[in-house]
Amino acid sequence: MRMVDIIDTKRNGGTLTDEKLQFFVDGVVDGSIPDYQISALLMAIYFQGMTSSEQTSLTMKMMHSGERLDLHQIPGIKVDKHSTGGVGDKVSLPLAAMVAATGIPVPMISGRGLGHTGGTLDKLEAIPGFRVELSEQEFIDQVAKEKLAIVGATGEFAPADKKIYGLRDVTDTVDSIPLIASSIMSKKIASGTDALVIDVKTGAGAFMKTLDQSRALAHALVDIGKQAGLQCMAVISDMNQPLGNKIGNALEIEESIDVLKGKGPADLTELVLTLGSYMVVMGGKAETMDQARQLLEQTIADGTAYDRFKAMVVAQGGDPRVMDDYQVMPQAKYQIPYRAKRTGVITKLTADEIGTASMLLGGGRQKADDQLDYSVGIELHHKLGDHVKAGEPLLTIYSNRQEIKNVEQLLDESIEIGDHGEQPPLIHEIIE
Amino acid sequence: MRMVDIIDTKRNGGTLTDEKLQFFVDGVVDGSIPDYQISALLMAIYFQGMTSSEQTSLTMKMMHSGERLDLHQIPGIKVDKHSTGGVGDKVSLPLAAMVAATGIPVPMISGRGLGHTGGTLDKLEAIPGFRVELSEQEFIDQVAKEKLAIVGATGEFAPADKKIYGLRDVTDTVDSIPLIASSIMSKKIASGTDALVIDVKTGAGAFMKTLDQSRALAHALVDIGKQAGLQCMAVISDMNQPLGNKIGNALEIEESIDVLKGKGPADLTELVLTLGSYMVVMGGKAETMDQARQLLEQTIADGTAYDRFKAMVVAQGGDPRVMDDYQVMPQAKYQIPYRAKRTGVITKLTADEIGTASMLLGGGRQKADDQLDYSVGIELHHKLGDHVKAGEPLLTIYSNRQEIKNVEQLLDESIEIGDHGEQPPLIHEIIE
Repeated sequence: MRMVDIIDTKRNGGTLTDEKLQFFVDGVVDGSIPDYQISALLMAIYFQGMTSSEQTSLTMKMMHSGERLDLHQIPGIKVDKHSTGGVGDKVSLPLAAMVAATGIPVPMISGRGLGHTGGTLDKLEAIPGFRVELSEQEFIDQVAKEKLAIVGATGEFAPADKKIYGLRDVTDTVDSIPLIASSIMSKKIASGTDALVIDVKTGAGAFMKTLDQSRALAHALVDIGKQAGLQCMAVISDMNQPLGNKIGNALEIEESIDVLKGKGPADLTELVLTLGSYMVVMGGKAETMDQARQLLEQTIADGTAYDRFKAMVVAQGGDPRVMDDYQVMPQAKYQIPYRAKRTGVITKLTADEIGTASMLLGGGRQKADDQLDYSVGIELHHKLGDHVKAGEPLLTIYSNRQEIKNVEQLLDESIEIGDHGEQPPLIHEIIE
Repeated sequence: MRMVDIIDTKRNGGTLTDEKLQFFVDGVVDGSIPDYQISALLMAIYFQGMTSSEQTSLTMKMMHSGERLDLHQIPGIKVDKHSTGGVGDKVSLPLAAMVAATGIPVPMISGRGLGHTGGTLDKLEAIPGFRVELSEQEFIDQVAKEKLAIVGATGEFAPADKKIYGLRDVTDTVDSIPLIASSIMSKKIASGTDALVIDVKTGAGAFMKTLDQSRALAHALVDIGKQAGLQCMAVISDMNQPLGNKIGNALEIEESIDVLKGKGPADLTELVLTLGSYMVVMGGKAETMDQARQLLEQTIADGTAYDRFKAMVVAQGGDPRVMDDYQVMPQAKYQIPYRAKRTGVITKLTADEIGTASMLLGGGRQKADDQLDYSVGIELHHKLGDHVKAGEPLLTIYSNRQEIKNVEQLLDESIEIGDHGEQPPLIHEIIE
């Protein structure tokens, strides 16, 4: 078999057989296929796409290229959640605690952030002492005992994907649905979960800007998950504006714990309840979505979700005082109000520009080795569709420097106040 | 400027500016752009194509990446010919001599063959002593004195193309019209000619299998040539069957000299006269095609074309006895007839398979460093549309081994005799 023939098959719109995909993945891992042939195939896939069974086959072969976590020691149906990523997206934090509080094990393997805002692991590290790097056995033991853990990858998942992912970034082949879907799913399947709920973001602040693109990705992800034998579904949720009110690492921990105390913002709480309900049904703790939702609301009302989060903080070495005293996390020196330029309705509050503003304050990475400032960020006082008065604070900037012209300029561009406007829907579609 | 943005522009169907193409070509030559990004761009060009001015710009930048031959020392309008290549295509040999005999300087830079049959240089080397590697000054002096020379590249033409060409082969981006056209023309423009006639082959034995593809390539080549300031035109000629009757290095030298003696096969002679007439008009030695054709026929009748070829052989160190005694070239041990399986009309005589048969005899290279056997080849006694009788020799195989089953099997597949059939047209279209 020759790689150039594999490229030719795809370039001409054909379907790659299992055998050809295996040859490709093997050659990526052992280095026998040079980068220039990998990137030619990636570009051909960008243009020609992949069939459903082709992308599942690629996913499984990338998954098998590395370790696969064996979670059989943990009793029960293990349920995980994946998000395609957005600004203010701290859903995993309250969600894991609430679902765990219903008795379902939630073994969550998360990542760090690049661009915009920190990732879930970065946010957790705003809690003094919190360790996100556990050994495989520590991770399994903690999920078995506490029902939840949120950690970085414990082993080398899908090394073929790692190599391909690196090339995609520099060869302009990032936004290909089969490549995105196989990359996500190869790692998720390797993480050993039984069921997976996927939050596909859509809109100006999301990787997928249109509902059509988001729907195509959601279908691809769910399709692969099911063909791989997982319970799997996806929610397409809005990312035209940030999710919740707080953006920044420590600020998002605060808001997450607020959700567990029943005082989280409406949109964030609603999305957590929606995603969580699917997880509870998949985890076998409820028959219907209504029952599941009631169970989850109960975990807030009776403090069991709060307890689960606290148990995780303790188990992973974090300072448990954070639950009731957010000041144990790094605090920004300055809180600078950003005021409405006119009276009217907020018609634009672009998520990714607000994310970039938070990054410029130090809350996100521009390069992979940038150090994060956990204390900084942005707190929104209003969201799309809200009526505001000229001069009223629209948001507060948490900063460690007083001079923040570049941040204010970016906010000027990302926010618009008009005469008419309304709240966008939070959940656009459910893909089962 | 970043290479990934250049890839992105093309991937999304945009046009690459002069500045971007310069950045690309510079980066290819100095090695600052990694191969995986070059190949991603090549695949994006394969899918999205290039505009006319874009492919001319790429051609000129690749041309300027290396040396350009200065032929100003040679008086007169210098005229060259390029062929996209086919089986039995020895046109350059008689053509150069006939055009040179009209007084037009023909500085011809040719190549070697890979696959199928030898290239023009390989054929010339069947003449004992013939040197195809001249210095730049030797080349110029010979064209000035003898009006013709056929040599390998004298300097490093278009190193950017060399690098890109190598990658195209292994990344399945060979058959892209803008990439083919810019590759050919960057080297032809670098060779310093004033006018260029291009023979684009079409049909089963050609790189371009359909007339549509061949037409598109011909237009691209002529377009670039004219934009680069050359006189330029193209003939689309048939390559469903081999051109002429002889295939093989020494055999093709014989047939070429036969044309100069007025006893060449009809199709070869006609194509040489057609291409040559355009060259003679471009070279300013005739006003009309009719006049030009008469001039060329005269060079055969009066022996001046024969003289030019002989002068070239002498100037380049070859044994001039070859002109009248083909036996000075290597001779095959065996001449094995291949007979018609039935009575009827020849309906198939596929050029590339017959070329491959010649290669299997040792007349062509499978790998770049294969040694050629100049003596072997195939002589056709009949062409498409000819009536033949069962048992009659269709062709003679010139071989140095008696056991040639694989060659005969290949010929069985490439030749069909039916009830009805006709000669295909020799010249399909003229692109000016």
